[in-house]
Amino acid sequence: MVFKKIDLIGTSEESFEDAIDDAIDRAETTLENVHWVDVEELGVEVASVEKREYQAEVEIAFQLEA
Amino acid sequence: MVFKKIDLIGTSEESFEDAIDDAIDRAETTLENVHWVDVEELGVEVASVEKREYQAEVEIAFQLEA
Amino acid sequence: MVFKKIDLIGTSEESFEDAIDDAIDRAETTLENVHWVDVEELGVEVASVEKREYQAEVEIAFQLEA
Amino acid sequence: MVFKKIDLIGTSEESFEDAIDDAIDRAETTLENVHWVDVEELGVEVASVEKREYQAEVEIAFQLEA
Amino acid sequence: MVFKKIDLIGTSEESFEDAIDDAIDRAETTLENVHWVDVEELGVEVASVEKREYQAEVEIAFQLEA
Amino acid sequence: MVFKKIDLIGTSEESFEDAIDDAIDRAETTLENVHWVDVEELGVEVASVEKREYQAEVEIAFQLEA
Amino acid sequence: MVFKKIDLIGTSEESFEDAIDDAIDRAETTLENVHWVDVEELGVEVASVEKREYQAEVEIAFQLEA
Amino acid sequence: MVFKKIDLIGTSEESFEDAIDDAIDRAETTLENVHWVDVEELGVEVASVEKREYQAEVEIAFQLEA
Amino acid sequence: MVFKKIDLIGTSEESFEDAIDDAIDRAETTLENVHWVDVEELGVEVASVEKREYQAEVEIAFQLEA
Amino acid sequence: MVFKKIDLIGTSEESFEDAIDDAIDRAETTLENVHWVDVEELGVEVASVEKREYQAEVEIAFQLEA
Amino acid sequence: MVFKKIDLIGTSEESFEDAIDDAIDRAETTLENVHWVDVEELGVEVASVEKREYQAEVEIAFQLEA
Amino acid sequence: MVFKKIDLIGTSEESFEDAIDDAIDRAETTLENVHWVDVEELGVEVASVEKREYQAEVEIAFQLEA
Repeated sequence: MVFKKIDLIGTSEESFEDAIDDAIDRAETTLENVHWVDVEELGVEVASVEKREYQAEVEIAFQLEA
Repeated sequence: MVFKKIDLIGTSEESFEDAIDDAIDRAETTLENVHWVDVEELGVEVASVEKREYQAEVEIAFQLEA
Repeated sequence: MVFKKIDLIGTSEESFEDAIDDAIDRAETTLENVHWVDVEELGVEVASVEKREYQAEVEIAFQLEA
Repeated sequence: MVFKKIDLIGTSEESFEDAIDDAIDRAETTLENVHWVDVEELGVEVASVEKREYQAEVEIAFQLEA
Repeated sequence: MVFKKIDLIGTSEESFEDAIDDAIDRAETTLENVHWVDVEELGVEVASVEKREYQAEVEIAFQLEA
Repeated sequence: MVFKKIDLIGTSEESFEDAIDDAIDRAETTLENVHWVDVEELGVEVASVEKREYQAEVEIAFQLEA
Repeated sequence: MVFKKIDLIGTSEESFEDAIDDAIDRAETTLENVHWVDVEELGVEVASVEKREYQAEVEIAFQLEA
Repeated sequence: MVFKKIDLIGTSEESFEDAIDDAIDRAETTLENVHWVDVEELGVEVASVEKREYQAEVEIAFQLEA
Repeated sequence: MVFKKIDLIGTSEESFEDAIDDAIDRAETTLENVHWVDVEELGVEVASVEKREYQAEVEIAFQLEA
Repeated sequence: MVFKKIDLIGTSEESFEDAIDDAIDRAETTLENVHWVDVEELGVEVASVEKREYQAEVEIAFQLEA
Repeated sequence: MVFKKIDLIGTSEESFEDAIDDAIDRAETTLENVHWVDVEELGVEVASVEKREYQAEVEIAFQLEA
Repeated sequence: MVFKKIDLIGTSEESFEDAIDDAIDRAETTLENVHWVDVEELGVEVASVEKREYQAEVEIAFQLEA
């Protein structure tokens, strides 16, 4: 059993949980076996967006097919 | 005055704040003098649960009796 | 173009997002060009407050005038 | 569901895997629900032992009863 | 010359070396020029497996074709 | 031979050495085989105390009985 | 909006800036929306190359299509 | 309630405690509400001073007025 | 003797050295006694600028007047 | 009593324990009082060797003669 | 101008300052141009000594002759 | 095959690459088998030099003779 991790950054105007869900949802459009997620960094973008945007960088671990 | 820290991981389907409160509540069932909490790690469990589960590893500091 | 970062700690009884917004709001009372925010530490104060208080230490980056 | 982590250091003259198993075995004499283990530090003691001794500091996570 | 690194987690009931080889073997089924491997984290899974399972998270560096 | 580490925070108005000794003394009221101590964090409390208070967070390692 | 980060190592006999540009150029042959780059590690290869080779490990962040 | 942290380096020929007090004293000449201090780095200057000089880099947290 | 550190981010289309000099130059327009500089982070901005922009986050240490 | 630490990297085709022993053996050909060893990094070399080579970077602490 | 750093651990029954001075004194018996010292780790040895022994691991930087 | 790493700090008024080459050149006056170099810290000295001086702390790895 081998897992792979990819590094995504999700964004949301509502909350960090939403930002993370956003990233997991995106991963699950192409990956079937997401197992767990580690949060790497949290931040807020202010200048280039209309409303403050919560950002979460996450590592998403999924199982590779044998 | 001496403090001790213990390392707990709370879980919640709602938010990281809920996961942390969950851990503090559990600590306060046996400890009387919780002073503060440091968040060590945040994550999300996906594969082994029905709904995504927010997880927060925290260090809970409480005062030891003299 | 030069940016400066300052280190603030916001607090909220509701959520970490509120605590961070609190710190950014305070920064924007005196600074005009806040660009982005890095979350450094999350914690919860228990002993010295009535209700548990979520705390977020953030680095706030703003552009210095030329 | 709340987990607790304790910090043990196992030792073995054979291998790091043995040193870690040593620590987990000791934990399981008093704890029933060990879930996973994170390796924190590896080292070797030389001066105070007859044969070199592999040492592994681990965090052992177990589920607290509700 | 440009290298890319991917993040895999190998597992083995025998040893960390086996777990790492497991991950490298998997990588080499699709990649031709693996150069070196950095070990990021070591752990042991206990609750969800029959026998304790050694886990190694590794970064695998391979050369991209020009 | 298995060691366990616990995390204490000692305080003193005199020095960090006093704060650490304070934590070790407290540990030795209930533990018999303290072997060594790692200093994790140093700080000073100012607002909630009369005189500045040096604080030392330490990990205290002691041998578990077989 | 979701970003992904990949981990590349660029090399150059001239400078770290060249090594980093090398990695970004390679990324942009297959990716359209590179947004920013974080430098993770700098090093120099000496033994296996004719002239000292500056190496830069970078995380390259690009926007995923919706 | 919002706190700000500033980064000072105090120096003393006597001790790290003196070096830290030195930095806090300097901060309190212009700041009224210092709450706590985190020690970031300790060092000793030898070459550019007559007598060895203990140095402590500290983060000083103070409450901003509303 | 007390030093203070501030955290600036300089930018340059040429090199990291230019980006750092940029930040130091800016600091010296208002500060007289800059002593040394620690490099904290290096990065490259790609999406929001015409030409790739090297960025260096630095801590600038200067001596406070007595 | 003063200790010195040196930084060695041992290699082995068999295991990390062998790689570490390799480094300690080499140290003991010239040093008499090796006390303990801290493991700093583990890795595997693949491209430049016939068989995968386990590598361990260790800090070796030995007592200096008075 | 090139500096070299060596890693020493000084010990003292009195204080961390004494332990550090101990290490610097030892370094200066064979090195002429010690410039500065960075403190890496602080600890206390308890089990193998009569009286608790403060230990300080330091990096000692000295100028190499041209 | 055993490697050793030493810790040097090179300096240059031109660039970090020059500062690093400076350190490697110095190492190669007494060492024959330098293999690779890891960059540990970058900084700039301002106060004690005429022109700003780029400084690079590097770990230089060389092969020990059998």
